[in-house]
Amino acid sequence: MKSNYFQITVDIEPISRRLFYTENETFYELLINSGIRVRSLCGGNGTCGKCKILVQEGKNFLNPPTNSEMNYLTPSEIRENWRLACQCRVKKPQIQLVKTHQPPQFRIFLPKDLLIEDFKILTSGKSKKINLNPNVKKFFVEINKPNLENPVPDIERILSTLSSIKNNKGIHSDVSFEIDTIRKIPLVLREDQHHISITLYNNKKFIDCEAGNTTEDCFGIAFDIGTTTLVGYLINLYNGKIYSIASALNPQTAYGEDVVSRITYTKDNPAGLAKLNSVLIESLNSIIEETCTNANVSASQIYEATIVGNSVMHHLFLNINPIYIGLSPYVPALKSDLNIRAKDVNLEISRSGYVYLLPLIAGFVGADTMGVIISSEIDEEPELTLAIDVGTNGELVIGNKDVIFTGSCAAGSALEGAHIKHGMRAAAGAIDTLKINPSDFGVEYTTINNKKPIGICGSGIIDAVAEMLRAKLLTRSGNFNKELIDHERIIKEEKNFKFILVNKDDTLIKRHITISQSDVRELQMAKGAFFSGAKLILNHLNRVNNLELEIKQILLAGAFGNYINKSNAKFIGMIPDIPDEKIFQIGNAAGIGAQNCLLNVDLRKKARKLQEKIKYVEIAIEKDFQKEYASAMYFPHLNLNLFPSLKEYADIPKR
Amino acid sequence: MKSNYFQITVDIEPISRRLFYTENETFYELLINSGIRVRSLCGGNGTCGKCKILVQEGKNFLNPPTNSEMNYLTPSEIRENWRLACQCRVKKPQIQLVKTHQPPQFRIFLPKDLLIEDFKILTSGKSKKINLNPNVKKFFVEINKPNLENPVPDIERILSTLSSIKNNKGIHSDVSFEIDTIRKIPLVLREDQHHISITLYNNKKFIDCEAGNTTEDCFGIAFDIGTTTLVGYLINLYNGKIYSIASALNPQTAYGEDVVSRITYTKDNPAGLAKLNSVLIESLNSIIEETCTNANVSASQIYEATIVGNSVMHHLFLNINPIYIGLSPYVPALKSDLNIRAKDVNLEISRSGYVYLLPLIAGFVGADTMGVIISSEIDEEPELTLAIDVGTNGELVIGNKDVIFTGSCAAGSALEGAHIKHGMRAAAGAIDTLKINPSDFGVEYTTINNKKPIGICGSGIIDAVAEMLRAKLLTRSGNFNKELIDHERIIKEEKNFKFILVNKDDTLIKRHITISQSDVRELQMAKGAFFSGAKLILNHLNRVNNLELEIKQILLAGAFGNYINKSNAKFIGMIPDIPDEKIFQIGNAAGIGAQNCLLNVDLRKKARKLQEKIKYVEIAIEKDFQKEYASAMYFPHLNLNLFPSLKEYADIPKR
Repeated sequence: MKSNYFQITVDIEPISRRLFYTENETFYELLINSGIRVRSLCGGNGTCGKCKILVQEGKNFLNPPTNSEMNYLTPSEIRENWRLACQCRVKKPQIQLVKTHQPPQFRIFLPKDLLIEDFKILTSGKSKKINLNPNVKKFFVEINKPNLENPVPDIERILSTLSSIKNNKGIHSDVSFEIDTIRKIPLVLREDQHHISITLYNNKKFIDCEAGNTTEDCFGIAFDIGTTTLVGYLINLYNGKIYSIASALNPQTAYGEDVVSRITYTKDNPAGLAKLNSVLIESLNSIIEETCTNANVSASQIYEATIVGNSVMHHLFLNINPIYIGLSPYVPALKSDLNIRAKDVNLEISRSGYVYLLPLIAGFVGADTMGVIISSEIDEEPELTLAIDVGTNGELVIGNKDVIFTGSCAAGSALEGAHIKHGMRAAAGAIDTLKINPSDFGVEYTTINNKKPIGICGSGIIDAVAEMLRAKLLTRSGNFNKELIDHERIIKEEKNFKFILVNKDDTLIKRHITISQSDVRELQMAKGAFFSGAKLILNHLNRVNNLELEIKQILLAGAFGNYINKSNAKFIGMIPDIPDEKIFQIGNAAGIGAQNCLLNVDLRKKARKLQEKIKYVEIAIEKDFQKEYASAMYFPHLNLNLFPSLKEYADIPKR
Repeated sequence: MKSNYFQITVDIEPISRRLFYTENETFYELLINSGIRVRSLCGGNGTCGKCKILVQEGKNFLNPPTNSEMNYLTPSEIRENWRLACQCRVKKPQIQLVKTHQPPQFRIFLPKDLLIEDFKILTSGKSKKINLNPNVKKFFVEINKPNLENPVPDIERILSTLSSIKNNKGIHSDVSFEIDTIRKIPLVLREDQHHISITLYNNKKFIDCEAGNTTEDCFGIAFDIGTTTLVGYLINLYNGKIYSIASALNPQTAYGEDVVSRITYTKDNPAGLAKLNSVLIESLNSIIEETCTNANVSASQIYEATIVGNSVMHHLFLNINPIYIGLSPYVPALKSDLNIRAKDVNLEISRSGYVYLLPLIAGFVGADTMGVIISSEIDEEPELTLAIDVGTNGELVIGNKDVIFTGSCAAGSALEGAHIKHGMRAAAGAIDTLKINPSDFGVEYTTINNKKPIGICGSGIIDAVAEMLRAKLLTRSGNFNKELIDHERIIKEEKNFKFILVNKDDTLIKRHITISQSDVRELQMAKGAFFSGAKLILNHLNRVNNLELEIKQILLAGAFGNYINKSNAKFIGMIPDIPDEKIFQIGNAAGIGAQNCLLNVDLRKKARKLQEKIKYVEIAIEKDFQKEYASAMYFPHLNLNLFPSLKEYADIPKR
């Protein structure tokens, strides 16, 4: 197969799509030909400067910047290896070389603005009803006017008014003033005849002063800072309603896919920490702007932001070096919750606004997991419950009203499409569900936005593997079933069997979309990590408490957790074998935790208390770690007794 | 006198010198010919761009900007009326016009850098011994290292160390962390094997973290923000010593001479407040840099700044609109003391440093007066004491251990050289002391830095008028004595008598230096305001307390107060007639107040308590205000019985 000589691969981030380069085409043509729609006004003629991409790997194998790029890119962008997609192509000599040598590999990053299709980002979730008791409240008052006999300063007159109403409003006896608010007072006070609305933070900090009655215009924003995805929820703190939601891919993805590679980036680049921090803050500020525009709200009336995120995201948000989270003994700078001023982290809400960060649990179990616990109220469950937050990092919580244990497992990002040949994130054109007909191995599938398929996302991969097992195309050890490899839908390339999910004629990329032997391996590692992690935490919990509890209930949190087919997740042995009706998809539980802490300040006290109750298990140093992990790599597990309900496995060969 | 036709005057700020323009000369030549040395590398050829001046009045009567100016000035500087002194001259047609019309008047401002001679700014003063108890302290500690069994976050390990030493050091039980400090911790902690120096603010805010033992490198800076003069004192908070002092003219002078004109500037210019604030902060930051360079100290180890200044300076420093201080009923935004973060006011000390502003007393009696009271301890005096802070604004304090009353008098800035024809600030070449021989009216004088005289400063003006009275050249009502006006040292110009202090041949400006009838009037108004102000406050104090106290002691504070000849001040009736040995010159008492509050935090509590004790008297609405003021315009007073010790007045004619 001559074409093999030209297997120059181009990995497209942040959608994690691997494309195959054809001689002479520009990267713009490559993207368009692969069904990835990118913005361009000139259609790839180099005259609009819109199709900017960041070359992360392989820059030396590209043609030098053209006149058009010199024109549309700044010198510093050129130094940072930004290119125009329509101007860059692989150098001729490279094309020759690959006929005899190892082909070069490329990795390019598409900025958010470039992609036309939006991604499927989970912003919803099931929220339990909570009482409204926000940290920020507004009071409408009339202030006395001064006179020559009693020339009392503005702030003293305001304080005496507050003092007269404080008893029935819970206002502190010593209210302090933020300097930005003091600056507004003299003019605002006289704008509407000394009628003003006073914004109090924590009942004691005077953080805003507006003319007239604006008590209903009091907002907060809850952020979920995921390794991959950022979501912001704009909430009215007067009535507790969500006014708008916006999300974006975490722009740090350009500098490293997972937390470990981002820590490495900060270690290897002198300005790396500042860069990761600033692109994140910039993106959060865009989300603030977007939610405000959509809800017709002024960002100056957002007085508080709450934040969940894993420990590395937490540190990067605060511009704290995360390096020691990545080195044994994996300690963060701090794990307590934190109230800081929005302007200290350049978050563009009210000049005197504050940010509340939920507490961390441990180096690799962050404020996101605390958010899951807060919103799921796992600490109030009578039955032992397993919560899995399925994101780029896999966090596990096992607990009930008496005990809570947590841990983090190295699940990898296979479920987000990485390291899967045709894997991709949940974007338009991704296969998200599928079924295989066991008689003829015909595949029925659905795609996101009903586009012609271009790849497969996490829920699709789980479905594919579960269905391949049911069709006995795979054995319990994850090998392709030798007896069926002659079927026309199975091909062999470079010693790697591949099952054709969609024939090339039916795809937008004009290539077969397949699940290969090595793709199955990736999924085995991911699901094995989840299952063994949960089992090791459970064992630890039982051992130290001298108990013999079993998991009775499962909560699947996170964007991916919500789209997953829970029967199939159980069928591949990613989660324990309990009845489907005891498995709940709780949506973006971390984000809901941030929302809840915004709406009710008492939950912050609860989070502090929970911090003492929650125990952290370092899974990798548990006894039996290796053995448990290896056993969990089988479908559904080496020990079938752990999955008594999965009768179909009786017929599936083991090896 | 033909030259009169050409009396084009150019007022030079901030030194308050009036110069007389000669046809065809550039402003550079005018300055040099008048003995004002300004920086220029090219000697006035327009090729170095150094001699930048701001034209505040008369810009339309100047030649348009030359090519050289287009080259060395930015478009925005040109719009703001900056010129190069060596390139600008009065337009020809104007020179013709003035022969028949009113001559144009100019006012130009010389930036600090332009002047070669330094000004005489008082930075010293008598300080009572105070105990060292600063708000900022450093502790050198060793922190436990983390391990896998107990992966405690950095901050928690630091807190537990602090907790173990807190009992014997007065450290609070809940220490909080500034975000900038948190950011430093992970790396600093590991720089010297977990040995760190911890900087605590107010025993409870962790504001710095440094590797190794730096406990002796702990600094503060005390600022006296005068309307005209800024002074900064860099103090080591570990040993209480002043390490260096720097001063500068308040750059706001370019936008208005006194507080009222600065309020007007903020009212008339949309960006006026921001401008006055930013030039002030910039200048304070230069002072910080200068003190640090001189003492070889890093500004990042200055952890606290304390501030005194009048109410308008206080507001402008904080970037608060001062407009309502200038409008009845003259209320400031606040008058309580204030602790704010240095970075909130852009003061370039430690990133986590704080600023303490002493409390104000009233709209026109500011934190500077509180500084005077704190440092002079007038509140502990058994005898009734009058303190006068002689600056651009005149503040008066009358008090003892039982009562304190304050007020502000409109003394004007005659004593700083303004509105006095040859008046100038206390800079090189200013006549600062003088004596007149009563027999031949010969004048003996001294000048600052022993330069040839170019003008006369405040202390010289007081001496001149006192000596002219002793020589009977003036009457008690302030008129030139008609019987002596034929003397050769007295000349008459435009109906205005002038006494020649120095003949033009002996001056650097090649003109007579004189004291004119109108100069004497200016001084009468100033000294009358001080005396009547003190008398009205005393009357008020006695009336409301039903007392009959008299002033037994006088403290002269402020730069000018220190250089004054106190016998002469009494002789002209500026201060009450009490024995010289009961009149004390206490130097820059306001600045010492700021230093003391930096060194001992208990004095801040005292200032808060004093605020309740101190009563403010609105002098201008006191009964008898007009009568008292008019009577005090006489030398020494209409009622000679108030000055029984001044026997010489028996011979001085009244009118």
